[in-house]
Amino acid sequence: MKYAIIGCGAVGIYYGGRLAEAGNEVHFLFNSDYDFVKQNGLNIKSVNGDFVLTDINAYKDSSQMPKCDVIIVCLKTTNNNLLNNILPPILHKNSIVILIQNGLNLEQELTQSFPNIGIIGGMAFICSNKIGKGAINHLDYGKLTLGVFQNVSEDIFSEICSDFENAGVPIEKSDNLLHSRWKKLVWNIPYNGMTVVLNSSTDALMNNPSSRQLIYDLMLEVIEAANYCGANIEKEFADQMMVYTDNMRPYNPSMKLDFDFARPLEIRAIYSNPIKSAKENGFIMKKTQVIEQQLSFINQKNLEKRGNI
Amino acid sequence: MKYAIIGCGAVGIYYGGRLAEAGNEVHFLFNSDYDFVKQNGLNIKSVNGDFVLTDINAYKDSSQMPKCDVIIVCLKTTNNNLLNNILPPILHKNSIVILIQNGLNLEQELTQSFPNIGIIGGMAFICSNKIGKGAINHLDYGKLTLGVFQNVSEDIFSEICSDFENAGVPIEKSDNLLHSRWKKLVWNIPYNGMTVVLNSSTDALMNNPSSRQLIYDLMLEVIEAANYCGANIEKEFADQMMVYTDNMRPYNPSMKLDFDFARPLEIRAIYSNPIKSAKENGFIMKKTQVIEQQLSFINQKNLEKRGNI
Repeated sequence: MKYAIIGCGAVGIYYGGRLAEAGNEVHFLFNSDYDFVKQNGLNIKSVNGDFVLTDINAYKDSSQMPKCDVIIVCLKTTNNNLLNNILPPILHKNSIVILIQNGLNLEQELTQSFPNIGIIGGMAFICSNKIGKGAINHLDYGKLTLGVFQNVSEDIFSEICSDFENAGVPIEKSDNLLHSRWKKLVWNIPYNGMTVVLNSSTDALMNNPSSRQLIYDLMLEVIEAANYCGANIEKEFADQMMVYTDNMRPYNPSMKLDFDFARPLEIRAIYSNPIKSAKENGFIMKKTQVIEQQLSFINQKNLEKRGNI
Repeated sequence: MKYAIIGCGAVGIYYGGRLAEAGNEVHFLFNSDYDFVKQNGLNIKSVNGDFVLTDINAYKDSSQMPKCDVIIVCLKTTNNNLLNNILPPILHKNSIVILIQNGLNLEQELTQSFPNIGIIGGMAFICSNKIGKGAINHLDYGKLTLGVFQNVSEDIFSEICSDFENAGVPIEKSDNLLHSRWKKLVWNIPYNGMTVVLNSSTDALMNNPSSRQLIYDLMLEVIEAANYCGANIEKEFADQMMVYTDNMRPYNPSMKLDFDFARPLEIRAIYSNPIKSAKENGFIMKKTQVIEQQLSFINQKNLEKRGNI
């Protein structure tokens, strides 16, 4: 299998790095890090063991890359519009795209330009930070949940999962991608948005009774929406997520980091798409709408202030 | 009529000052401003003409005050618990209390300690800021809406309204206090909370399409709640309030000022009480709950940070 990594941030470098270290052929597409990485390789600090990868297959333009069998997309969803230009040069007719991203309906969006391509949805449960050019610090967790969206045979799916597992990445195979994506949203919708709107870490939100209740209320709303969409999640999953978060070390979700660094927030994928899906299935996510609208205001102001618009 | 002013901030000083200037007997209860005011009087800058009141009836303890006929309460509702001690010394058996405050159910709350007292609800439509000890700047508007809650005869009510009008304060007599209080909430619930949660002035919120939509959605929710409670407000009132706010100069609502000065936020009166009333009448204010919970978190953090808890 010939792998490509599109989006070499803290997640892309980690999973691509693991695959490469295990001996797989991996081609990395870089942006501003290209020159540095071409010279110095990748530097991966990890709770599971540090390693350095020199002499990697690095590119700054996908037109220079070979056709790949598995294209792992770890872009921010706010950059998914770039895929229309990035993907065509590296696709052959059996190429498979794995979207390791947060949010909903990303696979459907991809089919608008690539209707018949093989697509796997991926959800990373990982704490990993970019700490420099081509350098990351993998702090905790690391499991990848993968589920076929369309046009991937069971054999090929198993082969890909094995490649990850052999590279030390725990894989959870999902046989219901919709269910898995909504389950991840039960965590992402409250915590990503609330840490930004209230400019706080997860533990501060959990320790105040009002914000704690709001987190819980939002989880229940997401579960209700999920069930309207046919994802079938038990109410008790909200209680499990509360316990899970109580036991986490204080953590800034990806959207909080995007906010702090004045990057565009992933509002469409994590908020607008679920709200839209729920509405189409007869449920209005009233509380989630409030967070979405607040985030849109904050995003606009944040980007203006830091000159990124 | 012998008047008392309890709560000498930007609103209390303005209305009490106007009544005194017009020749009414007014007794002012001060807190930290007492010594300064006793010496220097009140200094009122106003769009309707500046004036200074020297030799005023100033007190620092209500037990020193005479019994009064009309007690005008302009405290922050977060201090209404103080009324149990402040009021008894100045009440005679026909005294009337006017609560010039924002929020809902304040009159009902007062009857818990003073079940048979005459009560008028008041809503001030005024832009007025405290600018120093005993000094305010009245920038705009000034109308007072008054409505009888209980045990005030029509004659006495008219006499009080005339006293205000003769002092240059426009009065709107409400014959439905519940309706008037809810109408004010249609503005207060979106703008007070959103300017705090999003740390912005009203015009910034109106100029961003997402926050503008959220403001409007909140107005519609308040109107729906009001109607469940029997207040009977048309949906079109939301559109009127949008136009009204578009035409206002950029403005920080009282809660935003409280936030900026690290004073306790009036969450109970403006949010929790309406939410509770609506719920008792069969309607859940889902969006307003989100704002209430966010404000509770912010209030706690704000007071802790500035050492006011």
